[in-house]
Amino acid sequence: MRLSQLIGQRLHEAPRDAQTASHVFLMRGGFVRPLSTGIYSLLPLGRRVTARVEQIIREEMDRIRGQEILMPLVQPQELWEESGRAQAIGPELLRFRDRNDKPMVLAMTHEEAVVHLVRSDVTSYRQLPFMVYQIQIKYRDEARPRAGLIRVREFTMKDAYSFHADTESLDEFYLRVHEAYERIFRRVGLRECVSIESDTGMIGGSMSHEFMALAECGEDVIFMSPDGRYKANRDVAVSGVAFRKTEPRTLEKVHTPGRKTIEEVADFLGITPAETGKAVFYATPDGRLVFAMVRGDFEINETKLCNLLRTPELTFANDEQIRAVGAEPGYASPIGLDSTQITVVVDRSVAESSNLVVGANEPDYHQKNFNFERDLPAGATVADIATVRPGDPCPVTGEPLIMKHGIEVGNIFKLGTKYSEAMNCRFLDRNGRSRPMIMGCYGIGVGRTMAAVVEQAHDDFGPVWPMSIAPFHAHLIAINPGKGSVGEEAEKLYTELRETGVEVLYDDRGEKAGAAFFDADLIGCPIRLIVSPRTVKAGQVELKLRNGSRRDVLPRGDIVAEVRSIVEAELARLTP
Amino acid sequence: MRLSQLIGQRLHEAPRDAQTASHVFLMRGGFVRPLSTGIYSLLPLGRRVTARVEQIIREEMDRIRGQEILMPLVQPQELWEESGRAQAIGPELLRFRDRNDKPMVLAMTHEEAVVHLVRSDVTSYRQLPFMVYQIQIKYRDEARPRAGLIRVREFTMKDAYSFHADTESLDEFYLRVHEAYERIFRRVGLRECVSIESDTGMIGGSMSHEFMALAECGEDVIFMSPDGRYKANRDVAVSGVAFRKTEPRTLEKVHTPGRKTIEEVADFLGITPAETGKAVFYATPDGRLVFAMVRGDFEINETKLCNLLRTPELTFANDEQIRAVGAEPGYASPIGLDSTQITVVVDRSVAESSNLVVGANEPDYHQKNFNFERDLPAGATVADIATVRPGDPCPVTGEPLIMKHGIEVGNIFKLGTKYSEAMNCRFLDRNGRSRPMIMGCYGIGVGRTMAAVVEQAHDDFGPVWPMSIAPFHAHLIAINPGKGSVGEEAEKLYTELRETGVEVLYDDRGEKAGAAFFDADLIGCPIRLIVSPRTVKAGQVELKLRNGSRRDVLPRGDIVAEVRSIVEAELARLTP
Repeated sequence: MRLSQLIGQRLHEAPRDAQTASHVFLMRGGFVRPLSTGIYSLLPLGRRVTARVEQIIREEMDRIRGQEILMPLVQPQELWEESGRAQAIGPELLRFRDRNDKPMVLAMTHEEAVVHLVRSDVTSYRQLPFMVYQIQIKYRDEARPRAGLIRVREFTMKDAYSFHADTESLDEFYLRVHEAYERIFRRVGLRECVSIESDTGMIGGSMSHEFMALAECGEDVIFMSPDGRYKANRDVAVSGVAFRKTEPRTLEKVHTPGRKTIEEVADFLGITPAETGKAVFYATPDGRLVFAMVRGDFEINETKLCNLLRTPELTFANDEQIRAVGAEPGYASPIGLDSTQITVVVDRSVAESSNLVVGANEPDYHQKNFNFERDLPAGATVADIATVRPGDPCPVTGEPLIMKHGIEVGNIFKLGTKYSEAMNCRFLDRNGRSRPMIMGCYGIGVGRTMAAVVEQAHDDFGPVWPMSIAPFHAHLIAINPGKGSVGEEAEKLYTELRETGVEVLYDDRGEKAGAAFFDADLIGCPIRLIVSPRTVKAGQVELKLRNGSRRDVLPRGDIVAEVRSIVEAELARLTP
Repeated sequence: MRLSQLIGQRLHEAPRDAQTASHVFLMRGGFVRPLSTGIYSLLPLGRRVTARVEQIIREEMDRIRGQEILMPLVQPQELWEESGRAQAIGPELLRFRDRNDKPMVLAMTHEEAVVHLVRSDVTSYRQLPFMVYQIQIKYRDEARPRAGLIRVREFTMKDAYSFHADTESLDEFYLRVHEAYERIFRRVGLRECVSIESDTGMIGGSMSHEFMALAECGEDVIFMSPDGRYKANRDVAVSGVAFRKTEPRTLEKVHTPGRKTIEEVADFLGITPAETGKAVFYATPDGRLVFAMVRGDFEINETKLCNLLRTPELTFANDEQIRAVGAEPGYASPIGLDSTQITVVVDRSVAESSNLVVGANEPDYHQKNFNFERDLPAGATVADIATVRPGDPCPVTGEPLIMKHGIEVGNIFKLGTKYSEAMNCRFLDRNGRSRPMIMGCYGIGVGRTMAAVVEQAHDDFGPVWPMSIAPFHAHLIAINPGKGSVGEEAEKLYTELRETGVEVLYDDRGEKAGAAFFDADLIGCPIRLIVSPRTVKAGQVELKLRNGSRRDVLPRGDIVAEVRSIVEAELARLTP
């Protein structure tokens, strides 16, 4: 490809809203362009990168016997009512009516569609297990698209679905997919990509792992032990913090004028937050009131709490709702709550501590010496509803947990029978008995993977593409092509390289060296080759690797073989 | 691939609504499944076929220097307002509001999106001409999806857009795309595919060609001269019919009690329909009334009329509207119409004939001897608004025109500046002058191409896939695999074939020969190979071509080379 003909300009300035490296460089390098908020077009460079990512994914899905299919984006809403997700998912599921007034949705994942497909075409245990996959557009009506290609509304995803006769088969296959994902993310050149146990969220099921590309800009928070043996998403991470019980002292009301927050109360009473209890009132979508409490030095993890209560979301209760159950906003106490009117959940940090300071259900007053067993109403639930803190001991190794940020590039779920039960996707087992199929599902965001690679591999001047997904292997620049035989020599090299299978972007424009190098950095191909009056005269070609590891001048006669061997070595290095 | 693992059952019965061969066999063979009306999933066999079609398209687009991109399906409606198509297109453009209440559409083509992309990234004549293309999902909210994959709502399309500095460049490139399309449709194995001049419709522009796969079930009607020199869509076809003027006779009112239709009037008066005039009143969407007239032996072509009047559609006027301009429904006369109140359009067949019988604007009366020049109000337009009839003389060769049905698998348009003017997509020319870019656009329906191939290539038992897009090159059947070394021999052959690059579907199920052949016919791979106790004993393999041209028994030692050579010869034959 000649750079003079390539569509997509390099930009000197990043768009104002671009904060992350991938957003900045995918825009500046001419890889993507926004069409609307969170909706992007891929320019030729971007499409070349995603095509390579897709090809790697295909190869690895085929290796574990995946069968490629294609399912529609536009789907009847009734299918989503069958699975229950039409009711469970909020406005991020885009709903509309077609011209015949039939309710439709734009699919954000394809569990319903695949079950619809499979339940008519697979009937016997003999056909199990199998996996189908597709690389297809999805739409999620995000409230806050952000960070360029990292959180968008329309996106290309590889989604795969496996079907099994029993959980042993799913468990075994889940591990194979896990291995395939490790291969994929290694092959696309992600350096730090960890799989962590995660919340199953709106997909559902019994177990799931997220593949997280570690990156400062990632919106996911991960806790890891220093040796990597323990890794978990913030929403499922647990710590090995030990609490200590002491002799319960008598309840004692204290005057705490105007002190409402944990910090104010602790400060006023001369104690630490760890000696207090933090109470929050929530309301569920169906109007249930929830009282949740953690020790004052922790935060409530609302995802953990939602999962515990099996509710899709929780909102803060308003003062009226709080007073309706006899509590006092800002000074709420667990003591005396009526468990028939309110669900009470207490974190382990509260249940296993003693003599905490809590609200007194009276303005300007708190109670000292709250003790869970003695003071809490019957019917309270004790559970882990707190967010782990950096430095808390790892539940496995005991060492201090490290907090990292990550971009979720893939996820895998053991769905079990959630969809097959709801949608009647059954098979006849060996004994002729009808049973629901056991399912797994497995996603990879294609554009997000491209963006995550840039987050991990860039310098101040642009992306540093891994060989496997670079838009071109080599970027050939003719400096002063009009001078002597420079243009001719560059053209010859361009042809020779392509003939040996090297993909070359040829800068034939005759720009000044500075401008040409600026563009080459922004495009980020792994190998840069320069043909100039000086190199032609010396019978040489200049070679530079984009990652800075090598800068060399080689005899013209050796250059094609050398480039070919760099490409092969790099591809081999990335393939496990 | 082992047939025992392939997802997608073969069906003995076609679905009740399946009328056309492609619908029947794509369903029965396990290539596609409906998810909703006009919305299909592709099973692995169908996805393999479309992947091959897509690959052929990519190669031919790349050959003419197309650059692959990807544009979004979900688009802001304001873009479509900019081009004017939001207003011009009816309910087949799906409109909805996103969660922020912003009006959005699902794109049915991508002219707006590509202009949005290009106007920010291309600014100089130096970057022109170029073509970008994508293979992407589209959605068209069809009122009447039909015939399986032939008219659907969600579909995959290759759409390409070229940009030029002048019309000469567009004209030249348009021819190159035309050649590329001829190559594509030949390579995918369409036997009879003709390009015809066609109506530019809602896409707009100055010239367009449709690529029509001839097939009985096609909903498009084409008129061709016997030698193929003239080919045109019904909506633009013209004939060389000669009309004859005679001496005008005096107007004469005749009593025609209860006779309203042409047939009734002609019959009653003892004349032929060719001696009458047929009048129809239409209303435009903006409320304009139109009186159109053809000779009684022709039909009005509403598309021609719409194009003439530059209106997106015409509906029949109701009696009230007709009476409001002083005419009588059923007996309407052109005579005395007020051309300030109504647009009058008369076909050449009326203008060039004499003494026709027309309505008298009075119940139960007609006028004899209507003559256009003498009797029609000033301001009437004469134009070709009639549909050509089979047997009418060809305007080029004079021979009788033949009517054919076709499936539109591709189309190409000279758009000119329609979109670039409306959306301000300009460039600086050689002299620094800002000018709108000249555009072309070029589409191919991927699924529809697959269906069209089946329409042209099938027998009573299933599709007969061309080698180039067959899901597999060869279908290997082991008959009685448990007997002796049959299974083992078949496995060995399966492996050897794949090692030489032949794609094989291996029926390892051990079904009876009849059932296995039934499935092989329904899947339709070009080469069938049979390994059975008999062939193993004789050291042979049975080979049969799906198109019936060969049935043979070959020595086991020759079979792999023979299959390889059949595959290569077939692919070479299809490649021009």
